[in-house]
Amino acid sequence: MCGIFAYLNYNIERERRYTLEVLFNGLRRLEYRGYDSAGISIDSDRSRPSIGVDGPCDGRSQCGSSEPLVFRQEGKIESLVKSVYEAADLMDLNLGESFSVHAGIAHTRWATHGVPSPRNSHPQSSGPGNEFLVVHNGIITNYEVLKETLIRHGFTFESDTDTEVIPKLAKFVFDKANDGEGDQTVTFSEVVIEVMRHIEGAYALIFKSPHYPNELIACKRGSPLLLGVKELAEDVNSGTAFHDVKFLTMNGKPKELFFSSDANALIEHTKKVLVIEDDEVVHLKDGGVSILKFDSDKAKINGGLPRPASVQRALSVLEMEVEQIKKGNYEHFMQKEIHEQPESLKTTMRGRLTCRGSSKAKRLLLGGLKDHLKTIRRSRRIVFIGCGTSYNAALAARPFMEELSGVPVTMELASDLLDRQGPIYREDTAVFVSQSGETADTLLALQYAKENGALCVGITNTVGSAIARNTHCGVHINAGAEIGVASTKAYTSQIVVMAMMALAIGDDTISSQARREAVIDGLFDLPNKIREVLKLNDEMKDLAKLLMDEQSLLMFGRGYNYATALEGALKVKEVALMHSEGILAGEMKHGPLALVDETLPIIVIATHDACFSKQQSVIQQLHARKGRLIVMCSKGEAPLVCPSGSCRVIEVPQVEDCLQPVVNIIPLQLLAYHLTVLRGYNVDQPRNLAKSVTTQ
Amino acid sequence: MCGIFAYLNYNIERERRYTLEVLFNGLRRLEYRGYDSAGISIDSDRSRPSIGVDGPCDGRSQCGSSEPLVFRQEGKIESLVKSVYEAADLMDLNLGESFSVHAGIAHTRWATHGVPSPRNSHPQSSGPGNEFLVVHNGIITNYEVLKETLIRHGFTFESDTDTEVIPKLAKFVFDKANDGEGDQTVTFSEVVIEVMRHIEGAYALIFKSPHYPNELIACKRGSPLLLGVKELAEDVNSGTAFHDVKFLTMNGKPKELFFSSDANALIEHTKKVLVIEDDEVVHLKDGGVSILKFDSDKAKINGGLPRPASVQRALSVLEMEVEQIKKGNYEHFMQKEIHEQPESLKTTMRGRLTCRGSSKAKRLLLGGLKDHLKTIRRSRRIVFIGCGTSYNAALAARPFMEELSGVPVTMELASDLLDRQGPIYREDTAVFVSQSGETADTLLALQYAKENGALCVGITNTVGSAIARNTHCGVHINAGAEIGVASTKAYTSQIVVMAMMALAIGDDTISSQARREAVIDGLFDLPNKIREVLKLNDEMKDLAKLLMDEQSLLMFGRGYNYATALEGALKVKEVALMHSEGILAGEMKHGPLALVDETLPIIVIATHDACFSKQQSVIQQLHARKGRLIVMCSKGEAPLVCPSGSCRVIEVPQVEDCLQPVVNIIPLQLLAYHLTVLRGYNVDQPRNLAKSVTTQ
Repeated sequence: MCGIFAYLNYNIERERRYTLEVLFNGLRRLEYRGYDSAGISIDSDRSRPSIGVDGPCDGRSQCGSSEPLVFRQEGKIESLVKSVYEAADLMDLNLGESFSVHAGIAHTRWATHGVPSPRNSHPQSSGPGNEFLVVHNGIITNYEVLKETLIRHGFTFESDTDTEVIPKLAKFVFDKANDGEGDQTVTFSEVVIEVMRHIEGAYALIFKSPHYPNELIACKRGSPLLLGVKELAEDVNSGTAFHDVKFLTMNGKPKELFFSSDANALIEHTKKVLVIEDDEVVHLKDGGVSILKFDSDKAKINGGLPRPASVQRALSVLEMEVEQIKKGNYEHFMQKEIHEQPESLKTTMRGRLTCRGSSKAKRLLLGGLKDHLKTIRRSRRIVFIGCGTSYNAALAARPFMEELSGVPVTMELASDLLDRQGPIYREDTAVFVSQSGETADTLLALQYAKENGALCVGITNTVGSAIARNTHCGVHINAGAEIGVASTKAYTSQIVVMAMMALAIGDDTISSQARREAVIDGLFDLPNKIREVLKLNDEMKDLAKLLMDEQSLLMFGRGYNYATALEGALKVKEVALMHSEGILAGEMKHGPLALVDETLPIIVIATHDACFSKQQSVIQQLHARKGRLIVMCSKGEAPLVCPSGSCRVIEVPQVEDCLQPVVNIIPLQLLAYHLTVLRGYNVDQPRNLAKSVTTQ
Repeated sequence: MCGIFAYLNYNIERERRYTLEVLFNGLRRLEYRGYDSAGISIDSDRSRPSIGVDGPCDGRSQCGSSEPLVFRQEGKIESLVKSVYEAADLMDLNLGESFSVHAGIAHTRWATHGVPSPRNSHPQSSGPGNEFLVVHNGIITNYEVLKETLIRHGFTFESDTDTEVIPKLAKFVFDKANDGEGDQTVTFSEVVIEVMRHIEGAYALIFKSPHYPNELIACKRGSPLLLGVKELAEDVNSGTAFHDVKFLTMNGKPKELFFSSDANALIEHTKKVLVIEDDEVVHLKDGGVSILKFDSDKAKINGGLPRPASVQRALSVLEMEVEQIKKGNYEHFMQKEIHEQPESLKTTMRGRLTCRGSSKAKRLLLGGLKDHLKTIRRSRRIVFIGCGTSYNAALAARPFMEELSGVPVTMELASDLLDRQGPIYREDTAVFVSQSGETADTLLALQYAKENGALCVGITNTVGSAIARNTHCGVHINAGAEIGVASTKAYTSQIVVMAMMALAIGDDTISSQARREAVIDGLFDLPNKIREVLKLNDEMKDLAKLLMDEQSLLMFGRGYNYATALEGALKVKEVALMHSEGILAGEMKHGPLALVDETLPIIVIATHDACFSKQQSVIQQLHARKGRLIVMCSKGEAPLVCPSGSCRVIEVPQVEDCLQPVVNIIPLQLLAYHLTVLRGYNVDQPRNLAKSVTTQ
């Protein structure tokens, strides 16, 4: 949901064209987070007053510097790029002009308030003169009240966004503080902190202002934000602590600084990052970085603007490679990530599942959990909490978790738990599953569960994410960066992590020993099985050709593969834009069977497990209703699920029942992918959706 | 799922025509249970050999009496009726022939094994000569093994049904017992009990055989079955115990006896019924009724055929009226039952929620629960278990139950709990919700929970049903007979019963007193609000006209009305045969939003409660995606949910938030009803579905 990005070069000459390309490229890396409109702001020619595409500058006196240029455009990043170069041409902007210091901001949007359009795109502005410009990821929940107040104070709003109150509020604060006096009696960070005092909701913000030329301020609460640091004279070690303005200003060395919603847009520039925490205000000025901690309680104690304490933080080093965010030989990220699963699953298990010594005894160690296993075993309930695909992964892992832990597992869609304010107690273990680790509902549910005293366990793909940081313990799925909006490799890695977690929890029961060993063997062999099932690619493409013009699709599963049906249908729904629905096979007779006729395609998952005979019976009944069946079954069992040979069969390798969902989802991921390509839709940026939903 | 019916007159002259009409009428009353094919069997002219429609009698010597006639037909009951009269005409059958004693059996089918066709219809036969005829409701799970064995013994199978093994097995048992000797060395009940020893699964069976003329035997396990007794010389009080063959044979008085899958087919003949229990074998012979108890352990102790003990049972009196099973002024049962809801809800609350004395203090008493409230309050979890609409009702009641009880409520689809063999413990309270009280999955889940030591609570509409009998305690919803396959009034009564249950459980907490009183007041006023919301009938008909040609429909709800979205979508799915899907609004951004465009109709439930602002935000986002919205909101709030006036609004009366789902479902029931009529589908007998799913 929205990506924000900023680029500041210090003490090194960069042409305007270069700055633009850095900003555009940042947006391209973040585009998967939102792609219905985009915008940037850079400085105009400093020598002369200039015209922004949004309207002429009125040259108001309080502009401390020349008015920043703002370019905003509906549609994909590339349409922004095109329009910027066209506008630059039109206004005769010198792309070759060089700056030794310059601050630019950028935004790619996923519309929440107001339709996609230039005026609703970011940067949002304080008004004529663009005195304050803001890019925002998140939702301001009290924007209506603020808007009314600001309108009463004479502000005119141009957009339908919640964001527009922020730059206007900044101007209001700035004007009030200066109150007739000259510029600069109030610092940029004081303005921002005062703004933070008034806004509620979730946000990551970057501010730019001609009153504070060549400075940038970022702050966040809820939504993710990273600072990237690239020192062009490489003599400072990574991990060096920096403190207040001192650390980086002192040396005065040339450097590039970046803000970004996630690491994908940083990795090609630098691996040195700072994961900004909630309520931190990061101020880039004169090549230095100062970090202040906003504290709503301490604010306003002196009657004047609050002056919070500065904090000391250390840079960390990203453990990703540039290759991870590129498509390689694949046409789409989703396709790449589907085919990457043998490797991503291996990475998920690496160092956790090991063969020990000459005896080849298998050993399982989840470092992040080991101190809490006893507590988890004694829980009243294990509560799995997630949204979308992450919820489905938890659902797939649930039966095995119940089996090995003996603890009842309750499933909660994060938003539903919050809506209901459902009971969570100190005796509960709450497990939060989120690929990004930033999913707003899951994060809020985490806060809620923490307040209620539950032991909170995180399962995320993103080191340093909010969920990773705020849970008591947890496991990273280590699936590598997932760029496709439709989650694929994260889903299978999540299931494997939860299966390992179940093994760890059940580790001290003797009765389950044989079962545990079988599952561990199954895990070791899983990457091979995935390689095998990926060979169905062409078969699934053929199936997609058959189904591409359908309006509806049903998927029936049960037991371990109830989740497979839900997740398979979700994949088709979100990328192929086909109304597919996953249904518990046991519920078939309680309604869905009415839909069955000769035309509606139905995928039935009937791989071999304890529910197999029940699924056979379901298939028979669907046959009796002349249903148009596609049956997924274990290799060699086609005659058992389709005796008449009248239905299409997808044969998949059989694995230990609790791991079967990891295998079974692959053909459905492939089906969704090919359906999307054949139907002519955008695979990696499905309509209306965005990766990591960081707003409620 | 399948209805079985039998009629036996004793010591009173009945013309063949009359017998046929009683059988047909019985099937008409049961037709809602299954309606894709039907069949009957009556005796042929006893004076001469006769021809059945299924093929000529081969006049084999072992026929003890003339061969019974069997008529079977695909399609609705009326097509059976037509074909029977045509066949009778063709074979010159004397419809005026009169019998002082005669046994006829009948069946209406909901296909499980084998497509609807005459040969797959019941009665199923032992083969040429129709020596044993069986009507069956249920599923024989081990039929394949039995079939193989019987084929090895020379039997030829003609149908694809599981049922066919039963009459053939009966013949096999009969032939083997008689082994060259003459007829009648083995009794009819001995044959049936030996058959029961071999079959597994769920069943209610009625046997007819020319070897035992004018006798009928019924037995059951799992599926429901009632015996109705009409004494034509009315001098025996209801409730009189009868024992073995003695009770009714002794008096020799004229009488009519009936077997039926449920009370609906009995009520027009008699109110005196016996609810047959699992493993009881009821033998009608010489005007008498004997009941034997089958015990699989005791069987075969003497090497010969088992001779189980007879049991003593008392008749009970049905508390329903004939009007309940008639449509009155309505065109369809579903329509009648939707409009009946102000009254059915009143009946649900009658005697339970009362105004006490002059102070008008309200009082709540649930007699069936009061001794168990303490136990429930101390539970580790309350587990709601159901299927289809009953599950949705429980989901609607869940937030309020959690709020007042403070106990976490876990939702379980019955079949999923069984598939997973999910943990259920002694500290759990398991609540089983089923309109019929016979739903197979729910019943099996009940057995499972009982074995695991949970306190089991039943919530059903059917006094004497399996769930009512087998739970530790419970509440009848008293909504009156529900004939429409799509459950409507039972849904609202179920929610109200569970709300009352929450009030009873929360009765001893002071903090919730004000809330409790508000809800009790709300319950009192609910029938009036339902009357008010029913006035939306014409509006919903207009909406149905608008939507009738759509392929897909989404419904978004959250909080108390998550269930409303699921249930509304289920109604549309099951009767209007439109692919509608209920979706948690909070999950919208995690996939379903991709489907949103200008064409797909979306119903958003946004009545006023704590989630209202979140739903407003959902509506805004759907607007931003140009979604085609129909918003259900509280009266007077249209401007809040649809400021631009661009979406269609359904305004409903506001009630206490936890009761709102009872009001909100009504317009959706009406919508589903009108959609079905407009689309030209059968309202009361939706395609492929049947009332009370008594097989897994």
